[in-house]
Amino acid sequence: MRRAVALSARGLGSTSPNPVVGCVVLDAAGRVVGEGWHRRAGGPHAEVHALAEAGEAARGGTAVVTLEPCDHTGRTGPCSRALIDAGIARVVYAVADPTPDARGGAHTLAAAGIDTEGGLLAAEAAEVNAPWLTSVRLGRPYVRWKYAATLDGRTAAADGTSRWITSGAARADVHRLRAEADAVLVGSGTARADDPHLAVRGVPGAVQPLRVVADTEARAVRPGARVLDGEAPTLVAVADDLPDAATAHLDGHAEVVRLPRAGTGGGLDVDALLAALHDRGVRSVLLEGGATLAAAFVAARAVDRVTAYLAPALLGAGPAALADAGIATIADALRLTVTAVERIGPDLRVDAAPALPAEPAEPAASASVPAVHVSKES
Amino acid sequence: MRRAVALSARGLGSTSPNPVVGCVVLDAAGRVVGEGWHRRAGGPHAEVHALAEAGEAARGGTAVVTLEPCDHTGRTGPCSRALIDAGIARVVYAVADPTPDARGGAHTLAAAGIDTEGGLLAAEAAEVNAPWLTSVRLGRPYVRWKYAATLDGRTAAADGTSRWITSGAARADVHRLRAEADAVLVGSGTARADDPHLAVRGVPGAVQPLRVVADTEARAVRPGARVLDGEAPTLVAVADDLPDAATAHLDGHAEVVRLPRAGTGGGLDVDALLAALHDRGVRSVLLEGGATLAAAFVAARAVDRVTAYLAPALLGAGPAALADAGIATIADALRLTVTAVERIGPDLRVDAAPALPAEPAEPAASASVPAVHVSKES
Ligand SMILES: NC(=O)c1ccc[n+]([C@@H]2O[C@H](COP(=O)([O-])OP(=O)(O)OC[C@H]3O[C@@H](n4cnc5c(N)ncnc54)[C@H](OP(=O)(O)O)[C@@H]3O)[C@@H](O)[C@H]2O)c1
Ligand SMILES: NC(=O)c1ccc[n+]([C@@H]2O[C@H](COP(=O)([O-])OP(=O)(O)OC[C@H]3O[C@@H](n4cnc5c(N)ncnc54)[C@H](OP(=O)(O)O)[C@@H]3O)[C@@H](O)[C@H]2O)c1
Repeated sequence: MRRAVALSARGLGSTSPNPVVGCVVLDAAGRVVGEGWHRRAGGPHAEVHALAEAGEAARGGTAVVTLEPCDHTGRTGPCSRALIDAGIARVVYAVADPTPDARGGAHTLAAAGIDTEGGLLAAEAAEVNAPWLTSVRLGRPYVRWKYAATLDGRTAAADGTSRWITSGAARADVHRLRAEADAVLVGSGTARADDPHLAVRGVPGAVQPLRVVADTEARAVRPGARVLDGEAPTLVAVADDLPDAATAHLDGHAEVVRLPRAGTGGGLDVDALLAALHDRGVRSVLLEGGATLAAAFVAARAVDRVTAYLAPALLGAGPAALADAGIATIADALRLTVTAVERIGPDLRVDAAPALPAEPAEPAASASVPAVHVSKES
Repeated sequence: MRRAVALSARGLGSTSPNPVVGCVVLDAAGRVVGEGWHRRAGGPHAEVHALAEAGEAARGGTAVVTLEPCDHTGRTGPCSRALIDAGIARVVYAVADPTPDARGGAHTLAAAGIDTEGGLLAAEAAEVNAPWLTSVRLGRPYVRWKYAATLDGRTAAADGTSRWITSGAARADVHRLRAEADAVLVGSGTARADDPHLAVRGVPGAVQPLRVVADTEARAVRPGARVLDGEAPTLVAVADDLPDAATAHLDGHAEVVRLPRAGTGGGLDVDALLAALHDRGVRSVLLEGGATLAAAFVAARAVDRVTAYLAPALLGAGPAALADAGIATIADALRLTVTAVERIGPDLRVDAAPALPAEPAEPAASASVPAVHVSKES
């Protein structure tokens, strides 16, 4: 299963709106005879790849798969059927499929006489699939907020200079995060100050994410902006009360979506922005700031993961990583759990997730759920 | 030597103005027959403890010691003499003694026919002895600035509440840092806001540090303040232009030292404060804040180590860990090197040291210096 989870991770950034899935097929003697992962939406599922590689050797064998095999006919046939047809005797999966359409695979397999078991390494598999599982659970894209700051929490010096706070190694890592995401988002302040490119560079085989700028008044993304260079698709989100003329300069250069303004504070409604992205198949968003937009997401409890690149440096002045998110007292701090700490070059990368999930049915918690055994006897 | 370094660390906080030293004695067959560490200034040196435990078994054996054995008669006799008298055949030490008085032990040993080698595990040994080595090199106490902040760099919420940002485990770790330091220092702002106690609690066998408050106008430490409770000695640093009456309320409760005011900014002169502490035998200071005093130390380049306790929480508002230290642009950021990252309960502890030492002769760099072999042949 560990191998299947690693295979699944190869699909990150290219399978949305589908989950990432990895599959290893063993023959009747327990030898690995096939491996596969889901590469892109519309393409074959992991099981189909692995069964194709295994061929006849799959007969009487075991399929180890990170997600409950699907039971529906979408752009490809149901995997439950493919496993039955291949003569697989046993299926071990990690995470149950939570979607109304696709779930039920385990029962179909068991009904066909296949020994079927779920829950193995569920936490690890769920962690890799967190973007998709979160998007299914909440009906909106998974949001990872990424920022780079000094140890004392500054994202720039007093005079506004910020190149570079973190090392080249940390900045290269950000390109990997972009490659794993379906969309990369910044606010108009960042668009104006940095004219960022937001495309992936230096990650072989990466699928470019959708570049998104929250630019309420359609004034920050000007003709010639680097996000309009065509290297990746671009979406500019503006207020729905703007006249057509206000976005004329974007025609032919970027998609424009008109959204309601936020009820309080400035800018666009965060939920509406996330819904618009979800409608476009976006299941994971890398929020790259700045501090103002990140604060709006924190206030809307729409941050599922924080990735902080901390440079071992002190500034003592300059803008903070996160602006006012409406948190006034220590009891209201957004508490997180550190999920990983890594040294990247001279810097630290700290990953953390909100300690309390937005809803009780947190998939990552399924590790504590006993393994489900769905066999023909049951 | 690894064992000797570990033994040396037991002396942290109780040996100043002396270094910490650990020693392991092996008999002629290479068996450990004695261990010792320097416990307190005025008490026997590590070698003497270890030789006493070894007794006759030391004859023809090896002494492994973290610092070059001393060659001077201070409150105890020279260790070089003790090793010769015990019939030791070989001495292996880690770090050369940089002090004019005590150094020369290696040559005395070699001249007496003892095979003497230096440089083994020098970096590890120097790291444990960093406070003392730094104080010898710079002629002022070693300063560790410790702070507790959220991942986004806030030390309190917008309304000033800060209990608790970090976990009980992290706060217990601070007591270990206090126990290792000779003095614990805060500014008048912290004294006024928090009425901190600053003594060590919960560390068995700890020597209480000197509690120091930088209180220029002698207005922050009032009668009844917790630092005046007598559980540890207390020093209040005030401006040298204050009338005697201004400090009358401290008489009998704390030592008062009068120091020049800082040339720029407010408060007391940082160098004068450190010199006053050095005069009192203080070789290591734990600077516990607040942001204003820490900024003055950063500006004076008088921070040798930063220990940040980072709680995985976001506040988005509230005071920052470090106030204006006169750093205006990114090129002037105080760059550090991460020396350790540790998870303490839910929190992270990040240790970092300035990337460029204040002077070229950084002792910790001695690892890259080839081992010195001082033998009778040479
Ligand atoms: N170190 C890092 O990791 C990092 C990352 C990114 C940026 N930065 C720095 O951060 C600075 C820019 O940050 P910033 O805080 O000024 O700008 P920002 O967060 O990038 O953009 C804020 C703007 O986004 C628009 N917006 C749209 N919807 C919003 C909503 N729901 N809530 C809040 N804002 C919304 C608003 O402007 P309109 O109403 O005009 O649309 C708002 O003023 C730059 O200097 C950049 O270099 C640093
Ligand atoms: N989270 C943490 O790790 C942590 C740690 C400590 C404190 N805190 C918080 O920090 C807040 C207090 O911080 P603060 O920045 O207001 O005060 P502070 O740094 O504790 O004290 C600053 C004061 O120290 C005096 N001082 C003496 N010599 C100085 C010098 N050379 N440079 C600067 N100041 C000198 C000055 O006042 P005078 O001229 O009157 O002497 C100055 O105003 C409190 O709320 C406390 O809870 C947090």
